[in-house]
Amino acid sequence: MTLKVYADRMSQPSRAVIIFCKLNGIEFEEVRIDLSKRQQLTPAFREINPLGKVPAIVDGRFKLFESHSILIYLASVFPGVADHWYPADVFRRAKIQSVLDWHHGTLRRGAAGYVLNSCLAPALGLPLNPVAAAEAEKILSASLSKIESVWLKGKGRFLLGSTQPSIADLSLVCEIMQLELLDEKDRERILGPYERVLKWIEDTKNVTRPHFDEVHLILFKVKEKLKKLRPENGTMAAMTMSSFAPQSKI
Amino acid sequence: MTLKVYADRMSQPSRAVIIFCKLNGIEFEEVRIDLSKRQQLTPAFREINPLGKVPAIVDGRFKLFESHSILIYLASVFPGVADHWYPADVFRRAKIQSVLDWHHGTLRRGAAGYVLNSCLAPALGLPLNPVAAAEAEKILSASLSKIESVWLKGKGRFLLGSTQPSIADLSLVCEIMQLELLDEKDRERILGPYERVLKWIEDTKNVTRPHFDEVHLILFKVKEKLKKLRPENGTMAAMTMSSFAPQSKI
Repeated sequence: MTLKVYADRMSQPSRAVIIFCKLNGIEFEEVRIDLSKRQQLTPAFREINPLGKVPAIVDGRFKLFESHSILIYLASVFPGVADHWYPADVFRRAKIQSVLDWHHGTLRRGAAGYVLNSCLAPALGLPLNPVAAAEAEKILSASLSKIESVWLKGKGRFLLGSTQPSIADLSLVCEIMQLELLDEKDRERILGPYERVLKWIEDTKNVTRPHFDEVHLILFKVKEKLKKLRPENGTMAAMTMSSFAPQSKI
Repeated sequence: MTLKVYADRMSQPSRAVIIFCKLNGIEFEEVRIDLSKRQQLTPAFREINPLGKVPAIVDGRFKLFESHSILIYLASVFPGVADHWYPADVFRRAKIQSVLDWHHGTLRRGAAGYVLNSCLAPALGLPLNPVAAAEAEKILSASLSKIESVWLKGKGRFLLGSTQPSIADLSLVCEIMQLELLDEKDRERILGPYERVLKWIEDTKNVTRPHFDEVHLILFKVKEKLKKLRPENGTMAAMTMSSFAPQSKI
């Protein structure tokens, strides 16, 4: 029975799981749960994940959600996954777990909060919220600063000074990639001060190509749509959710 | 070399780690990092955890922070820890990981945000913030509702329908215990609607006594102090951080 991955490529944790499967030769069926159509809230999907969120997986009779748990599970049960993604060594594993735990209340909260409230909200039928965006930007910048000064300290190119990427690199870089949706000046303003972060993003992309780029294509398509809808183009108010089914043409 | 646990019992993840060690006969030295004196921000402690947060551990040459990572590490390297805390079975382990991942952006954010902004802030030299408290209460109530309807579904008394507790039960119950700091009516209003949650809290306390109670003593002492400082008692404005070194007499 093939592994099923329920995902929307507009969700960063969905992208991390899909890229991980592709990188490691894990055979899977991608089942799209269209967030712009609120398909994550349907009774059928709630049978898979009662919390109504993507990604989720079904592996035989086993159902699982929360992307870090999924990545750890896949690394543990599929024999072809290289050790560096989630090392058997208990000390290295603990450190990776530590980064993943840190991610939730910091980078994820800041990046998702900023992108949603500063540019993506209209695509989901919500108003932009400059106050919430400013609050999220503080969390985002503080998080990037910690990645630069704490997690990327060391000799290797990847988190925790490693010479090869782990599931933490994949998860965090996918998180940061959503900043591609921003206006370029805005993205530069936020990411520009963090040279090590920028280099690490490029290094992570380089070792995960072509899958990384292919799975992120959706972001650049949506970015083009968002550009046309910015207030300076005078069309923001006309936006509707149905005009924004981002993956329907892929 | 004895395991060192750097902690402040006023922090719920600190309490979870201390209780876990005591429950499992793990020999350790508790090093108090007094949050009310901002000791987590000293250069000496930043050598242990550059993020400046408790809990953190030092085990020989190995340093680790983030409480979930610490609990998983301790369960993995100390031979006396019973399997139910963090099962070797990959499926049960993945489900526990899923609860722990969920915890960060939901229950933790709601409970800590509500307690801080509705009653604890003055003890840390901060103003109360009713708007932030209201926002956090929404997250807290939604989280309790999910624990009731999703995570406590099943035959067993514990999370995921288990008959014995895991590190997820310990971590989440310690989180909820901070609501003890609230005025009783307020706590009842928030927790009252969730019968299964209330029963699960009691069940978790019962299987972790006497350590659970002993490590939580601090909360009840601080609660008494907070009572005297409520606005209706006319003394809130007179409060200072130094009057609030909660563990200094323990």
